[in-house]
Amino acid sequence: MVPTSVSDQGAHIIQKETVGGTTYFYTDNTPAPMAGMVFPTYHIYPPTAPHVAYMQPKANAPSFFMADELRQELINRHLITMAQIDQSENTGVPSEVDSYHSLFPLEPVPPPNRLQKTSNFSYITSCYKAVNSKDDLPYCLRRVHALVFSYDFHAGAETMFSRHFNDPTADSYFTKRKWGQHEPPPPRQHAGLLPESLIWAYIVQLSSALRTIHTAGLACRVMDPSKILITGKTRLRVNCVGVFDVLTFDNSQTNHVTLMPQYQQADLISLGKVVLALACNSLAGIQRENLQKAMELVSINYSSDLKNLILYLLTEQSRLRSVNDIMPMIGARFYTQLDASQMRNDVIEEDLAKEVQNGRLFRLLAKLGTINERPEFQKDRTWSETGDRYLLKLFRDHLFHQVTESGTPWIDLSHIVSCLNKLDAGVPEKINLVSRDEKSVLVVTYSDLKRCFDSTFQELQQAAATGPL
Amino acid sequence: MVPTSVSDQGAHIIQKETVGGTTYFYTDNTPAPMAGMVFPTYHIYPPTAPHVAYMQPKANAPSFFMADELRQELINRHLITMAQIDQSENTGVPSEVDSYHSLFPLEPVPPPNRLQKTSNFSYITSCYKAVNSKDDLPYCLRRVHALVFSYDFHAGAETMFSRHFNDPTADSYFTKRKWGQHEPPPPRQHAGLLPESLIWAYIVQLSSALRTIHTAGLACRVMDPSKILITGKTRLRVNCVGVFDVLTFDNSQTNHVTLMPQYQQADLISLGKVVLALACNSLAGIQRENLQKAMELVSINYSSDLKNLILYLLTEQSRLRSVNDIMPMIGARFYTQLDASQMRNDVIEEDLAKEVQNGRLFRLLAKLGTINERPEFQKDRTWSETGDRYLLKLFRDHLFHQVTESGTPWIDLSHIVSCLNKLDAGVPEKINLVSRDEKSVLVVTYSDLKRCFDSTFQELQQAAATGPL
Repeated sequence: MVPTSVSDQGAHIIQKETVGGTTYFYTDNTPAPMAGMVFPTYHIYPPTAPHVAYMQPKANAPSFFMADELRQELINRHLITMAQIDQSENTGVPSEVDSYHSLFPLEPVPPPNRLQKTSNFSYITSCYKAVNSKDDLPYCLRRVHALVFSYDFHAGAETMFSRHFNDPTADSYFTKRKWGQHEPPPPRQHAGLLPESLIWAYIVQLSSALRTIHTAGLACRVMDPSKILITGKTRLRVNCVGVFDVLTFDNSQTNHVTLMPQYQQADLISLGKVVLALACNSLAGIQRENLQKAMELVSINYSSDLKNLILYLLTEQSRLRSVNDIMPMIGARFYTQLDASQMRNDVIEEDLAKEVQNGRLFRLLAKLGTINERPEFQKDRTWSETGDRYLLKLFRDHLFHQVTESGTPWIDLSHIVSCLNKLDAGVPEKINLVSRDEKSVLVVTYSDLKRCFDSTFQELQQAAATGPL
Repeated sequence: MVPTSVSDQGAHIIQKETVGGTTYFYTDNTPAPMAGMVFPTYHIYPPTAPHVAYMQPKANAPSFFMADELRQELINRHLITMAQIDQSENTGVPSEVDSYHSLFPLEPVPPPNRLQKTSNFSYITSCYKAVNSKDDLPYCLRRVHALVFSYDFHAGAETMFSRHFNDPTADSYFTKRKWGQHEPPPPRQHAGLLPESLIWAYIVQLSSALRTIHTAGLACRVMDPSKILITGKTRLRVNCVGVFDVLTFDNSQTNHVTLMPQYQQADLISLGKVVLALACNSLAGIQRENLQKAMELVSINYSSDLKNLILYLLTEQSRLRSVNDIMPMIGARFYTQLDASQMRNDVIEEDLAKEVQNGRLFRLLAKLGTINERPEFQKDRTWSETGDRYLLKLFRDHLFHQVTESGTPWIDLSHIVSCLNKLDAGVPEKINLVSRDEKSVLVVTYSDLKRCFDSTFQELQQAAATGPL
């Protein structure tokens, strides 16, 4: 096997052509095997690639989890996905709804405060994680009276409201502090304002969602911090889409799309409010009476692009607003977002590359475990001590029971990994297997061992499949 | 532990506020423990999330590897990263260069055809993978005479030239076919032209690279298919940056940045040529005499945005070209690229989530292996058969040596995974461990077993660290 690598043209030049001052050579696509090239026939873990090892995410780019944080996050999501309730202690939770079972409340049941309904379409709603019996996958159910809406479940998601707007002290700038017409608001850079890069990361994603929806001739109608979900550090998704369309469906109206342009305008104004609230780090900033203060805060602390975007969305426009009009304001920040996303891909890929061998190694040890020391096989109590199995028993000792010259245990995971990899690859390398009484040494190749291993496990599997002889 | 989930506001409402028609409730940030909530105390693999399970990448978006392909790709990259040469058979390859060792040629040594140098800065160059002894990471070295340039090594990368322009028959449209002034070129949609989405994916990345370089006051000078590397399906990187700056460095010139504006213009023209060649799927298309034919081909098969971008870059402009001017032509395609990149993130994350447990399980089995059947520990030949170790021996039998009622082997990986997970978590669940003579049954909890397991392995480790007593 020969790597297709950085620049392998020139191996077998079959034609050349000079184009625009540069000479190109066409090559035979079949790379010639290179003499004396050695691929390790067993696997060892490659180091992290330098472009990830020395990655320096840009200061103005959205941040993302690095490998260790991501693992923690994945385990956390896993836990949340698998969480169940004890039905006997939660009689208020239905055991099944339509084809969904294993309901797990994502909000308290019943809601402790009926006022909560205001942010939930003026209805009492409940929200569950549930498993669809048709595909066994987890979904998020939003239940409104007898209606149930089903959405993808994103474990560990939180709302933009709960992440950014759940601290009432942040509003004090607007609600408590008094400052006069001529006294400029103090810069709030150090008072917990969000970094502009985060706000743009959100703008790009929310405008992308609106663009997709509006291009389809629909409206979102739930562009609100309580309906925007955040997973990881900056990834957004819009929850509860379609709920208003169903709840306000008017059968008497013949053309249901008539109101869409109006709803789409409302979507864009809602987006403006979300962005302004983020820029003020307070929902109080979008109250009509605070608007001037809020815009001054934006002018002082953020770029004119951000201010212009908010003004475009929130002030009167002579013609209909369009989500396409904000693209130029995002401008080169698209590149920043894309860079960050691709760097994140690199990080996760590197992390996956490290893990991709573990499943294989685990299965190898599990197979070996089913063979070694098996007390009886098909009425033969000496099966695991004789023939091929004897070799595998000695290999097991070689793998796990190494001792130093002075007789102390020598425990080294890389020895285990390396031996298992050689076994898996069946390399021609020889290995000395010492009997327990140290009286005999069997010299075999890993390739021999692999044959023993494969045929023995096959024997077990066949017996398992066909029953006793 | 309580999940921070889809919408947990309302748990402990401590303040409400009505803003812009929506009522918001501030909640106590400490979630109340939910009565009767059960987290599985052992791990089982969660299913693929629906947003990945039912992912439908958009037709006009750049494609990416799905999980299985990605694993193959990662293993392939791993192999290439670890490949070495046999020094004795490759005497032409230096054993060391500066602080780099383990050189592995990425191009034939010596180059079979001296003409090859035309595309390599008019010098004979050689290209190696090598390991830096300072950080033990692999790098790509480009050697020009006595000069060595070091770049990040991207295993499995190939040049844009070798992926897209290495088929001379693709040029026949320009070089062989005769068609008159009035005879329009036939549509080549079915003749192997590249999808427009791929071309835009490339444009976005190449313009991003140029933007970064130009913003830094520098020029790229190697915007050429032989210097553009592709990894995966569509990811681009520019190779050999800086080589021309060094090779053409003129000590007599006082201000080295004077020529930058000119080089930057050349970069943009080079980008135009790359894009036109991609659109024609042939390098012949960018030859001056074929330009009209080539542009007609573009007009027929691609969007006017693509045509305009090429015209902007390749035709005379009254003022200096700027990479910023092409952003509006990319327009909403930024969203498409970003969407694709984020979907790709979702796929890799889901895949990593599946693997993240395997390393842990593998280490558990490796530890168990060091304990079970150890022939001797500190001169005690019965160590592994007595005390805590006896329980772990019976647990090993429970794990691996299950049989059906009729005595045939019962081999089930999920049983092994589940038991190991319960052991790892130390759950209070009880387990019946049957002695080999079936005369006694020991009832222990996984929590007991975990204690035995941990203390025994610790005992081994201590002995390994301190030597024999």
